[in-house]
Amino acid sequence: MQIIYDPIHERHAPETFISAGRVMPNPEVVERATRLLASVEQAGHDVVTPDAFGHDAYAAVHTGDYLEFLSSAHELWSKVAGASDEVVPNAHPGRHMHTRPHHIVGLAGYHMADTACPIGAGTWQAARAAADCALTAAARVMDGTRVAYSLCRPPGHHAYSDMAGGFCFLNNVAIAADYCRRHGAERVAILDIDVHHGNGTQGIFYGRGDVLFVSVHADPHAFYPWFAGYAEERGQDAGHGYNLNLPLARGSGDPQFHHAVEEGLAAIHRYAPDVVLISLGFDAQENDPLGILKVTTEGFRHTASMIAGLGLPTVLVQEGGYLCDELGANLAAFLDGFENAA
Amino acid sequence: MQIIYDPIHERHAPETFISAGRVMPNPEVVERATRLLASVEQAGHDVVTPDAFGHDAYAAVHTGDYLEFLSSAHELWSKVAGASDEVVPNAHPGRHMHTRPHHIVGLAGYHMADTACPIGAGTWQAARAAADCALTAAARVMDGTRVAYSLCRPPGHHAYSDMAGGFCFLNNVAIAADYCRRHGAERVAILDIDVHHGNGTQGIFYGRGDVLFVSVHADPHAFYPWFAGYAEERGQDAGHGYNLNLPLARGSGDPQFHHAVEEGLAAIHRYAPDVVLISLGFDAQENDPLGILKVTTEGFRHTASMIAGLGLPTVLVQEGGYLCDELGANLAAFLDGFENAA
Repeated sequence: MQIIYDPIHERHAPETFISAGRVMPNPEVVERATRLLASVEQAGHDVVTPDAFGHDAYAAVHTGDYLEFLSSAHELWSKVAGASDEVVPNAHPGRHMHTRPHHIVGLAGYHMADTACPIGAGTWQAARAAADCALTAAARVMDGTRVAYSLCRPPGHHAYSDMAGGFCFLNNVAIAADYCRRHGAERVAILDIDVHHGNGTQGIFYGRGDVLFVSVHADPHAFYPWFAGYAEERGQDAGHGYNLNLPLARGSGDPQFHHAVEEGLAAIHRYAPDVVLISLGFDAQENDPLGILKVTTEGFRHTASMIAGLGLPTVLVQEGGYLCDELGANLAAFLDGFENAA
Repeated sequence: MQIIYDPIHERHAPETFISAGRVMPNPEVVERATRLLASVEQAGHDVVTPDAFGHDAYAAVHTGDYLEFLSSAHELWSKVAGASDEVVPNAHPGRHMHTRPHHIVGLAGYHMADTACPIGAGTWQAARAAADCALTAAARVMDGTRVAYSLCRPPGHHAYSDMAGGFCFLNNVAIAADYCRRHGAERVAILDIDVHHGNGTQGIFYGRGDVLFVSVHADPHAFYPWFAGYAEERGQDAGHGYNLNLPLARGSGDPQFHHAVEEGLAAIHRYAPDVVLISLGFDAQENDPLGILKVTTEGFRHTASMIAGLGLPTVLVQEGGYLCDELGANLAAFLDGFENAA
C-alpha cells in the first residue's frame, strides 16, 4: 500500500497539556509517528513524501483568520513578557462573547478550544506537512489508486474551520475530503473510528449535504470532546441527515465496535459516495493509555476488512492512538486486513 | 457609611491560575478583603454581617444548571482519580459545541470560561456570602438608606448567567440589581468602573431594557475579558440601547478615566433610574499589579464625588483591585469622596 509520510512532523513536539487540573506531559509525541512508520516499513509498504499543496487547499475548509493565527501565533507569543515557550490558551469566549481581539493571548483563546494543542516554533510547519500527506493520499486515490494511507501527525479531526483542539490544528481529513469534492467526486463520505468524536470534521461539514460524516466513538457525556458527538446531532440546513454519530459506552469491545462500524458503513453504502475517507485512530484499542474502549488488534484487522468491503476508493488518514506496545501492530493489522479483503 | 462584610470569604482561597501559559499564584487572595476591611474600620464606618438570602435570589439571574454545578462541583471533582485539589477547566465548548455533558471534567469547561476561577471546597459558601453582602446592601438602600457598601469577595462581574470566569462565580451586582427591580425600582442602572469590562453583567442584562449597564474599562482588544467590552455592543432586543461600553486605551490616567465616567453618568442621568449600583474595582489604580491604567487614589475620591452627584440611592459592590500599598487607601478615599459630596 502507498504510505505518505513527512519527517518534518518531528518539529512539532508539544510539551504539556492540562488534564483534570494537572499539568501533564503531552501524549501526542513524535514517537507515535516513528513507531507507526517502523511498522509499515517492516511490513514492506512503499513510503513516499507528500507533494506541497499550500494555502488554498487548507483555506477550502479553514478561515483566513485562523490560518493567519496558526502561521503567526508562536512568533507573536514569544514577544509577550513572561510567556511560556508554547502558545496555550487560558481564557475563552464561551457562549456569550464573540469578538476576535487583537492581542495574541486573547487570540489563543479565540482560536484554541483547549489546552491539548500547544503551538511551538515548528507546529505550523508540521501541521501543513500533515495536511499535505492527506492531500497527497487523496490526489493519488482520485487519480485511480484504490487506497492510500497518510501517516499524518499532528492529527486533525478535532480542528474546526477556525479552532484548534485536542492535539489538532489543520483538519487533515476535512481538507482531503474537500479536495476530493473539487477533483471529481460528487459525493464524499468520511468514517471516523478514532475513540474520540471527530467534532471538528462534523463542524466543518455540518451544513453540507455533499459530505456525509459518520463517527464511531466513546460516549462524549463522559469523555473528550464532551460537548459534541451525540446521536441527536444530525446536521443542519443542506446538511441535515448527513451527520451520523454512533457513541459507544465506556468499556465497549470488538462486538459493540464492529456493530457500530457496520451501522456506519450501511449508511455510507446507502449514500453511495464516489470516495470514502477514514479518520483512523487506534486509541479505541484495549491497551491504549486512554483505557476507554477495549478493541483488539485483531478487531482493527476485521474493521479494515469491513471497510474494504464497501469496494470504494479509500483514503486512510491517521488520527489518534497513543504509545502502547500494540500501536504499530494495530496499523499493520489494519492495512493487512484492508489489502487482503480488497 | 454602612459596610456589609462576611468573613466566611476566607474559606475561598484559590491557589493558581494560568496566564500566558504559566501557572501563577492566584492574585484574588483573602488579604484583599481583610485589607479593605481594615481600611473601613480605621475610617470609623459601621461594619455589619449580611442577611441570608438563598437560592431564589441567585436564581433570578443564574440558571438552575449553573447553580447546581457551583454547589456540587468540588465534591464531584474530588472523586476524579488524579484530579487537582481545585476545579480547573481544560476543554471548552467554543463556538461550535453546545451540549452540557454529564461528567464533572466536561461540566467544568461548560460552566467556566477560564482558568482564573478555580473552585475549592469553600468556594460555594464564600460566593453565596458575597452575593448576600450585595443583596443586603441593596435591601438597605431600597429601604431608604442613601448608600451602602458591600465588601464582596469573591467578586462577581465576570460571571454570566451560566458561566464563572475571571475570579467570579455569582454575579453579586447583577443579583443585587435584580433584587432592586423586584423590590420597588422600575429602572435600575449599573456603572462598572473596574479596570476589566463587566462582561458577565453585560451578558445577564443584554436583552433587558429595565437595567442600564455602563462600563468604563481598559480596551479589551489587548486585555481580559478579550472577547467583549467593545463600544459597538449596545444591547439587543428589548435591551437595545441599554448597554454602554467606554473602553480606555492602555496607560490612561485620571483625565481620561474621569471623562469616561462623566459620559457614563450622563447616560445614567438621562435614563433616570430609581437606584444605581456601582461595580467598584480599584484595579485601574496606577500601582495595581495589573499595571494597565494610571488612576490615582485622589482620582477615585473624585470619581466617587461625581457618582454621588447623581443624587440617587446607591449600592456599592466591591469587584477587583489587587494587592498594592494603596488598596485600602483607594477604598477609604472613595467612601470619603462619596460621603463628602452626597
